Amino acid sequence: TKTFHIVVLGGDGIGPEVCDQSVRLLQQMQPHLDGVEFHLDPHDVGVGEYQRSGEALPDSAFEACLASDAVLLGAMGLPNVRYPNGKEIAPQLDLRERLQLYGGVRPIQLFHESDTPLKDYGAGDIDFVLVRESTEGLFYGRDAVADLSADEATNQLRISRQASERVCRLSFELARRRGGKKKVSLIDKANVLSTMVYFRHIFDEVAKDFPDVTAEHVYVDAMALFMVRRPHDFDVMVTENMFGDILSDLAAGIVGGMGMAPSGDIGDNAAVFQPSHGSAPDIAGRSLANPIAMHLSTAMMLDWLDHPETKRGAEALKAAVADVLSDPNQRTADMGGKLSTVEITDRISRSL
Amino acid sequence: TKTFHIVVLGGDGIGPEVCDQSVRLLQQMQPHLDGVEFHLDPHDVGVGEYQRSGEALPDSAFEACLASDAVLLGAMGLPNVRYPNGKEIAPQLDLRERLQLYGGVRPIQLFHESDTPLKDYGAGDIDFVLVRESTEGLFYGRDAVADLSADEATNQLRISRQASERVCRLSFELARRRGGKKKVSLIDKANVLSTMVYFRHIFDEVAKDFPDVTAEHVYVDAMALFMVRRPHDFDVMVTENMFGDILSDLAAGIVGGMGMAPSGDIGDNAAVFQPSHGSAPDIAGRSLANPIAMHLSTAMMLDWLDHPETKRGAEALKAAVADVLSDPNQRTADMGGKLSTVEITDRISRSL
Ligand SMILES: CC(C)[C@H](C(=O)O)[C@@H](O)C(=O)O
Ligand SMILES: CC(C)[C@H](C(=O)O)[C@@H](O)C(=O)O
Repeated sequence: TKTFHIVVLGGDGIGPEVCDQSVRLLQQMQPHLDGVEFHLDPHDVGVGEYQRSGEALPDSAFEACLASDAVLLGAMGLPNVRYPNGKEIAPQLDLRERLQLYGGVRPIQLFHESDTPLKDYGAGDIDFVLVRESTEGLFYGRDAVADLSADEATNQLRISRQASERVCRLSFELARRRGGKKKVSLIDKANVLSTMVYFRHIFDEVAKDFPDVTAEHVYVDAMALFMVRRPHDFDVMVTENMFGDILSDLAAGIVGGMGMAPSGDIGDNAAVFQPSHGSAPDIAGRSLANPIAMHLSTAMMLDWLDHPETKRGAEALKAAVADVLSDPNQRTADMGGKLSTVEITDRISRSL
Repeated sequence: TKTFHIVVLGGDGIGPEVCDQSVRLLQQMQPHLDGVEFHLDPHDVGVGEYQRSGEALPDSAFEACLASDAVLLGAMGLPNVRYPNGKEIAPQLDLRERLQLYGGVRPIQLFHESDTPLKDYGAGDIDFVLVRESTEGLFYGRDAVADLSADEATNQLRISRQASERVCRLSFELARRRGGKKKVSLIDKANVLSTMVYFRHIFDEVAKDFPDVTAEHVYVDAMALFMVRRPHDFDVMVTENMFGDILSDLAAGIVGGMGMAPSGDIGDNAAVFQPSHGSAPDIAGRSLANPIAMHLSTAMMLDWLDHPETKRGAEALKAAVADVLSDPNQRTADMGGKLSTVEITDRISRSL
């Protein structure tokens, strides 16, 4: 029997509720996955923990993540509780940097035409993955503290060869594995920024190792427009941290919103899977949250664990979600539906 | 008689064609604007000029812009001709910085339901203005040159008190003048970046001088999503240069594309009006380009000249454009229509 050690970080707001539902599906699946066992290890992190202990990400939780096979994360942060410097408490960013989770993999998939605000798109017509570099870029400058009485403030955008190479390589490998259009679009601003000229140069170098995959360059401003006018043209996209943050929310918007968008933050030695949404404190504790993104993130984790049985589990979970979503009446409140967090998970559980 | 000195910079690709059509409309209007005369002063700038003279923005052209009442600009740059450092030739960026055109004003308006890729939006349902700070932000770092063999490259994002104050003030004044929702949304990333904490602080200070205008903060990633899910909720937005570049293309995308999006780059001593689109060399010289953004930019210029008669002209020109666009069969090729650059201008001319 292979035991997978999975750290579970419910976090803040709706985080624990959606996380609980995914854990429930995992537990349901486990007896059916041959020779696989999940060892679930919950830890307290986030704003609640910061208020209790003064540490949003206690050492013990960090060490557990480091030693784990994968981390499932609900949501972290609360808009009204901040560090003294005015910035949000976002241990997910610390995790990305400290665990060097360089690939923010954000699959975007349309399950039903009623979920998209775009005309003329139906189930399966939108199906791409955005890979966000998650260890540097403009977020590299996030440790700066602004002096509000000064005449100016600055942040730095940093692009390194090492981080660019690994995130580009991950993206090409992903395109190859998906086996679809086999295309990677670099999203940059090489017409203006030297960092982007540099990033493009490295992307082009890596592309040479993948002659079977088409490589193209798209300016970030143009891509924002293409997302609403021809999202069907894309397969895998790779971009800088800040650009990826903006475009991945937009991408979620065209398939139903943040409640539909899973993510995996992938490194060479660790990986964290979490829905793209935040902690939504306004609806927390009332079973109103949409758990789909969390369940799809869990499926990504199962796939990533890379065992034939967990991969089979991933496929089964994704199929159950798709099955439930094929009926547009099965939706939570964020999507105009009537089902609770638990109820929609019940349906997925039955379909599993 | 009041004479307005208007510098006309056709530029590259489709720039001259669309510019010519706007000049034609200006000339048609002039006899009907009482006591107003336009003195049009064309100059060569852009890639063509760079290839001829080695200067994309010759001193004589710059001096003329500086001395003018307003500048009309077609489009500049050609994707395949670059400076030796790999960056695009974009004298419009030099103009913004050298003339301190801090307010990149980009009105977004839906003229007909068939123009938007979004479901359930009709004429008038989308009507907001995005103000892009255009002298600093991440573009401040654009003079850096990347060493492609180095281990990393960096750019700087700079936000100054002075530039933030003036662009926020312009935005609040605009909201007041529009007299609609009277709301200004600051688009920032204050949860992560110290420059944005700083920008927000100054925005809040300026907001105090406009108690009749609602001020709100929206994170840039959330705004990208809101643009496709509730664009009707916004009135005036103000943001950093790079964020504004990305979001304004997206905004153009939800009302028909770059060919529909006018802009004005406004400073205290000069202003440049130009369509948001680029030079589109692939369709240049064939009367295929959509001149609507150019004509709407010309209307913005007339309004900005701030003379009762030019303001009347601005209204008349906008009304003529709206009249032509109220028939979805009157469109250029970029929007699936059959009219040429000249033909659609003919219709506007007749409606004027
Ligand atoms: C909460 C925030 C700090 C975070 C980010 O900007 O990375 C979020 O938007 C995300 O995309 O994961
Ligand atoms: C052509 C390019 C340099 C320019 C910019 O990035 O500002 C354009 O995208 C714009 O929005 O005016």
